[in-house]
Amino acid sequence: MQLVRLVRIVSSLPRLASFCSPFSSSAEGAARLLRVGDVLRESRRFSESDVVRYSEVSGDRNPVHLDDAFARTVAGFDGGRVVHGMLVASLFPSVIASHFPGAVYVSQTLTFKLPVYVGDEVLAEVQATYLRQYKNKYMSDTTVKFTTKCFRNEDSLVVEGEATTIISTLSLSK
Amino acid sequence: MQLVRLVRIVSSLPRLASFCSPFSSSAEGAARLLRVGDVLRESRRFSESDVVRYSEVSGDRNPVHLDDAFARTVAGFDGGRVVHGMLVASLFPSVIASHFPGAVYVSQTLTFKLPVYVGDEVLAEVQATYLRQYKNKYMSDTTVKFTTKCFRNEDSLVVEGEATTIISTLSLSK
Repeated sequence: MQLVRLVRIVSSLPRLASFCSPFSSSAEGAARLLRVGDVLRESRRFSESDVVRYSEVSGDRNPVHLDDAFARTVAGFDGGRVVHGMLVASLFPSVIASHFPGAVYVSQTLTFKLPVYVGDEVLAEVQATYLRQYKNKYMSDTTVKFTTKCFRNEDSLVVEGEATTIISTLSLSK
Repeated sequence: MQLVRLVRIVSSLPRLASFCSPFSSSAEGAARLLRVGDVLRESRRFSESDVVRYSEVSGDRNPVHLDDAFARTVAGFDGGRVVHGMLVASLFPSVIASHFPGAVYVSQTLTFKLPVYVGDEVLAEVQATYLRQYKNKYMSDTTVKFTTKCFRNEDSLVVEGEATTIISTLSLSK
């Protein structure tokens, strides 16, 4: 992380998406192809409303997400209601798709290391670790693997894993 | 799957949740503890509205989920708009929490093998493969691992993986 140099930031509060490269010397604004080592980021603060809406659409009504007293006294979460881990993890395909519309998800591993509480600032980071292009006369796609991490309130690693995707164009369009 | 004997079904259309055991001879309605081999199920049909609502709350606006023409002609999905894989996978914590309120997710692996299209019938199955209890004078919890699978339209395996959870009481409450 210390080696990463900021190339460009696209900000749209309350969400912040950015793209960083440890290698590139491209001029600001110049589109280029994704390379191993590139980092894509997005930050988000999940509200009570987000958690309720996610519960409704996913059907996951676990009281650790919806009942503050239950979360604290029964489940032992000091910070109260916990954001669904799968909602936090949705930041990974979200940040990838925001840079590569049409990206197809192949796999994702997730380890939930610490809880994310309602209102916490969450920073999702995905870093390209592997690219392999395959093409025929009809199409050209690239398998791209990313390490996937979420940090809470700027320091604590809360979710980590790896994603594998298929991307048709590696042009970083934003 | 052929060996699984139905013990009890709780139905609440449009979602169907059930619990099956390959071992139990318990009488209908009698609560008992989860055991290795037990299968929990839930079925769901994701609507266009579900996909739009999930896009809004997750921020994942990949056009393969929202734009039928893009999904068909650019991304090559014959069935049109694809349900977000992470929304399909949310059935796993959902079915676990519906039987074990307060269950805490530790990890999940996911391989997305085939697309799920808007309107497809999806059956999620989680099967307990490992239980290890640990307790002290204050608490007693059990680490439970599940294989996690989703089937589309009764036969095609669309998502598979493994989940690790911490559950405080193994009583199958429904």
